[in-house]
This record gives sequence, C-alpha cells and structure tokens, in this order.
Amino acid sequence: MFKILSKENKRRVGIIKTQHGDIQTPAFLPDATYGAVKTLSFEDVLKAGIDQILTTTLHMSIRPGDGYIKRMGGLHNFLNWQRPILTDSGGWQVFSLIHKSGNGKVTEEGAEFIMPDDGRKHLLTPEDSINIQANLRSDIFVVLDDPVIGSATKVENEAAVDLTVEWAKRAKKAFYKRYQLDDKKFDDQEKYKRPLIFSVIQGGNYKDLRKKCAVKLLEIGFDGYGYGGILLKDDKKTTRDMLSHFAELVPQDKIRYGMGVGKPDDVKFCIEEGYDLFDCVVPTRNGRHGYCYTSFGGINLKSSKYRYDNRQIDPECDCEACRIRDKRPGASRAYLYNLFRAKEISAMRLCSIHNLRYYSKLLGSYR
Amino acid sequence: MFKILSKENKRRVGIIKTQHGDIQTPAFLPDATYGAVKTLSFEDVLKAGIDQILTTTLHMSIRPGDGYIKRMGGLHNFLNWQRPILTDSGGWQVFSLIHKSGNGKVTEEGAEFIMPDDGRKHLLTPEDSINIQANLRSDIFVVLDDPVIGSATKVENEAAVDLTVEWAKRAKKAFYKRYQLDDKKFDDQEKYKRPLIFSVIQGGNYKDLRKKCAVKLLEIGFDGYGYGGILLKDDKKTTRDMLSHFAELVPQDKIRYGMGVGKPDDVKFCIEEGYDLFDCVVPTRNGRHGYCYTSFGGINLKSSKYRYDNRQIDPECDCEACRIRDKRPGASRAYLYNLFRAKEISAMRLCSIHNLRYYSKLLGSYR
Repeated sequence: MFKILSKENKRRVGIIKTQHGDIQTPAFLPDATYGAVKTLSFEDVLKAGIDQILTTTLHMSIRPGDGYIKRMGGLHNFLNWQRPILTDSGGWQVFSLIHKSGNGKVTEEGAEFIMPDDGRKHLLTPEDSINIQANLRSDIFVVLDDPVIGSATKVENEAAVDLTVEWAKRAKKAFYKRYQLDDKKFDDQEKYKRPLIFSVIQGGNYKDLRKKCAVKLLEIGFDGYGYGGILLKDDKKTTRDMLSHFAELVPQDKIRYGMGVGKPDDVKFCIEEGYDLFDCVVPTRNGRHGYCYTSFGGINLKSSKYRYDNRQIDPECDCEACRIRDKRPGASRAYLYNLFRAKEISAMRLCSIHNLRYYSKLLGSYR
Repeated sequence: MFKILSKENKRRVGIIKTQHGDIQTPAFLPDATYGAVKTLSFEDVLKAGIDQILTTTLHMSIRPGDGYIKRMGGLHNFLNWQRPILTDSGGWQVFSLIHKSGNGKVTEEGAEFIMPDDGRKHLLTPEDSINIQANLRSDIFVVLDDPVIGSATKVENEAAVDLTVEWAKRAKKAFYKRYQLDDKKFDDQEKYKRPLIFSVIQGGNYKDLRKKCAVKLLEIGFDGYGYGGILLKDDKKTTRDMLSHFAELVPQDKIRYGMGVGKPDDVKFCIEEGYDLFDCVVPTRNGRHGYCYTSFGGINLKSSKYRYDNRQIDPECDCEACRIRDKRPGASRAYLYNLFRAKEISAMRLCSIHNLRYYSKLLGSYR
C-alpha cells in the first residue's frame, strides 16, 4: 500500500507498506546483484541508513536458483535482510545480453538467451519472471518488459511498447494465479498480504508512445510504474524531458519508480518531479573506483591531489570512513588514496559505505 | 617495558608498555602488510578485540615510502591506528625475494634485491631498517637478520648466525644513534620514551647454533627475541622441539616472539612454552579462502556441505557474521557459501573478521 504523507509542488513524501516493513519515500535501493551489495555486509548497509534493497531476479534464479532460495525460506531469510526487497524482472539483464552481445532473441513468448554464468540457453517468459520473484518471496515485483536500445526506430519502439503491454497482461494474470487473487482481492493488498507489483513504461523518446504504454498499463492496474530506459544515454535535456513526461503520465496515487536513476543530480531532479523510488549501481560502483560524493561535489580519491590530505572525505558525513575515531578520521583521504594504489579491498568498501551514506542522507533530507 | 603479571608452569601472562598503549600478553598481531589488514578496516580489527598490529617495513618503505609516512605523522596517524604497532625488519620479504626468486644477494653490507613492486634495485642494510622503522614511528622494531632456507647446510646456517649477530650489533648502534641513547639510557625505556627493539635468533635446526646466536644477541641486549625460521616447513616434531629450545634460550624477563606462528595449535603450544607474542597471516588468508576456525575445529565454507546450512559459523562466536541479528545469524554458512561461489568480496571480509575474533578470544583465554 502506498500513502502520501505530504506534498509540496510536485514533490511528495510517502510510505510504502510491504510484508517486511515500510519504505519511507522518497527512497533509494542499492543493488545486491548476487545477494550482496558489492564489498558490503548487510550490517554495513543498515548502518548507512538504508532500509530497502534491490536484488536481481535473473542472477538469483540461475545462481543459486530461485528453487534454492525458496527452500532456504526466501530471500529475506537467506540474506538475513528482514526489510523490504524489490526484485527487478530480470528483463534488463536479458536485454543487455540480447541487445549488447547478440546472445539471444526476443519472441512473443519471452526472451531467449544464453547466460554467460552457465553458458546455457534459457527462456524467460513474463510468467516465469513472476514465479521466480514469488519463489524469492520478494516484496515488490517488477513485470518483464521489452526495453529497446537507444538507436531503435519509432516502429521498433512501438513494437516494444506493444510487447511490454502484452507481457504485463500475462504477468498480472500469472500473479493472480500464484496468489489466488481477483481484481477485488488485488485492491485490498493489506488484507490479502500480497506483494506489490510494478510494470515498466517504455516508448523511448516518443511521448505519444510513452503515453500509449502508460494508458494501457494503467488499465491493467499495478501498484507502481517504472521509468524504462534511463540508460538510453541521450542528451541530458531529452532524458529529463522524458523523465518529467513519465511523472505526468502516472497518477498521484501510484508509485513512481526511477529505475536506474541515478546520479545525485538526477535523483534530486526526479524527486522534484514527484518520483518515489530509485535504484542505481552508481554509489557503490563509483565508490569501488574511488569516486566519492560529498556535500561539496564529487571527489576522486585516486587522484594524487589527495596524497597528503589527512582530512575526512566529507566533514559533514558520519560514515565509518568519515567519523572521527581517536581524534582523527576513521580513514583519511590520504590513507584511502594509498589503499587504492595498493589495491586494498578495504578502500572499495569504505568508499561504497560513504556513498551509500551520502545517498541515504540525500533522500532522507526530503522526507 | 615488559612485566610478567602471573606465571603457571612455563606459561606466563604479562604486559608490554609501548608509546601507544599496552599490549596484554600473550597477544596476537594481525598483518597489515600494505597498511591494511586485508579486506578489513581498522574499525573491523578493533571490533574483533585486537589491540596491536604488525606492518611490514619493506612494503611501507617502498610504497608509499617511509619519508612519506614520516611526513604524515607516522604510521599511527596515517593509518589512524592509535595502538601498538610492531614493524618487522623487512628481512623476511627480502630473503623470500632473494632465496625464492633469485632476485638479489646477501652481502656483508646488507641485502641487495629487486623489488617486484617497482622493478628497481634496492639495498637494505641493518642501519636502513632501523631508520625506516624510526621514520614509521613504530612501537616495536625488529632488527634485520639473515633467515636461511630449509635446505641450508650447517655451515650455511652458521654463516647466517654470524651475519645475524653482526647486523644486530650494527642495528643496535644505529638505534642508539637515532634516539641518542647509551646503555644506561636504553635500560630506562620509560624515561627516555624509546621504542622497543627485538632481534631474531637464527640457527636452523641446530641447537648449538641457536644457542650461540642467542648468547651473542643477549650480550648485545634487546627487549625481545623472535624465533627465526618458523617457515622452514620441517616436520612438526622438529619444529616444536626447536620452538621449545628457543623459549629456554630466552631469559624470563625478555619477550618471546613467535614470528609467523601460526595456526591455533601452534599458538597454544608456544603459549605453554612461555611465548608472549605471535603474528601470522593464517587467520586472514584462510578467511579469504573460506576456511574458518571454530570452537569445534576448522570448517571450509567453500564446501558444498554447507549449501543448506543456515546456522552461524560458530555458535560460540560473537563476530559480525556469527552474531544474531533479527533472530538469525548475521551471515549464515549457506549465505557465505554462496557469496564465495559468486566471488563476492564481503565473504572474504566476514570470514577474516570471524577468524580474527577467534584468535582474539583464543589469546584472551590465557590472560
């Protein structure tokens, strides 16, 4: 269930009730691709002030396998993360495999692809994706969609929208079947203790296609809607224009999810446009490469200008690296600079923690 | 200053006073080779109950350089580890380069070698080693010695003993010079606030050579003595026999340091023989490979027998992985098994923390 607590202009503060607790929105979800936010323990994630994570359905379904996770009592028990989990549809990974590597094809039935992890051929249908996420015992499902590449034509985009809508219908049907729901029961989420389910609005940079996709998906009816295609790598103005357009297409009472959004500036922009959820690998991936977000902009700790800098990454931060311990920063810029040079893993972890803490405080500042 | 607080048979409990606090003995020092205990932050190390670390002189002197560390206010400030630090002599690394890789030679003057880190030729003399450790502002120095390989003859071992003694003389002289000491001032460590200085007793598996080496080094006078050659890889009986012999050669009021000792059983054996200090990469290196020490023996979390095991590594442990959080282990065996399979770094860190906690409690149980 989604409840808006307050609103100012387009921006809003809300709460999403799930079977594993509440998500205070706007909220950021770090990516725990293979069951861990890279280099971090879940205690690290909690200490950064993060209360919800994303895990990737496809990876989990192949290794260790959703049957395995089910046997282990679901993702929450397996990971010991007793808070909300959103699972993606597996679609992004599939299409990045298909579109980028040519290792498969999209058919009406689903996505056929060869997984590099096991070298085997897999078919992922919209129904499979729902059943996998159910086996994982996810709190928020995302239905399989057909994201197109940036160079796709309008005709290709329209075909992708049609397939996305068709798959969303099938996904919702599979969801009803799995949880023995009908339209009436679906609307009473709390009573029937069902997970939430999101679909993804595609349409590339064509507003009419986005609108067509939104209208049809709204007819089917989901708890939230994801913005498809942040990774189209368009110019910033076009992307932001489309991000705004998306927010207008999704009604007030529905959750707006900026999938793969993003850098702090993009997150701030989307919050002002009325988005509620975000996920991105940026804070942890950048952290692993020594790039840290701070109250005064980004800094790259691999740069030799930090060699003699014994200050904390950000004096306004209270993460393990920045916090004062024994009168000095837990890990100074100079120390981290040297750890990166020596390829010490602890530097990647400390900078990932720092960036997650930055995101956690950034999102918290709006709530 | 070293003070024995209690004694039972050969075993003893004591305290080493350094300029950065006390070491309660018997104590274990994890290796922070490149300025970090691999995969861990110093907060992790402190939380494991560890109050003292070892850093390797040679690595620090070449990258980032002891001049750099001096400029940054010494190792304690650079690392922000405001507790005792023991620095090795650099000897072990040099001789492993020379003896194992043939990248240099030992002369009367010192050790000449090519460092793989920078591909350059270096000369490390006993005086250099002291001055580097002084630049690092170490609490406990170890003087340069000449460790021999396991296959060395008695003649070669005797030459190594002679060189070790000669270098120890020169090292002590350099130490006096650096800290403006004489024999009288040296004996009043607390008043003159000098670091402690250890030498290393060599002699291979020849008791007469060990004795000769010990007698001569005792004449020169050090605060503690290290057992040289744990890595000779002899049969267990021979090694233990030599470890016992070493303890007998070092008088009661001197610190006995089991360099590179070792596995829990070896540590226990040496404590019973009257040793005070230990350092070894075993807990962290094994942890990185999924091998964990427990109250019921070692277990290898990479083994598929842990695939469905949702218990903690060791129910008697209170580390981040074993501690109960939200009614379940922080990280179960099954979860860690899967993280290792997915090559997730956090598994290496959690098992390293677990093993350090095991060592910390093992040593603490004797105090």
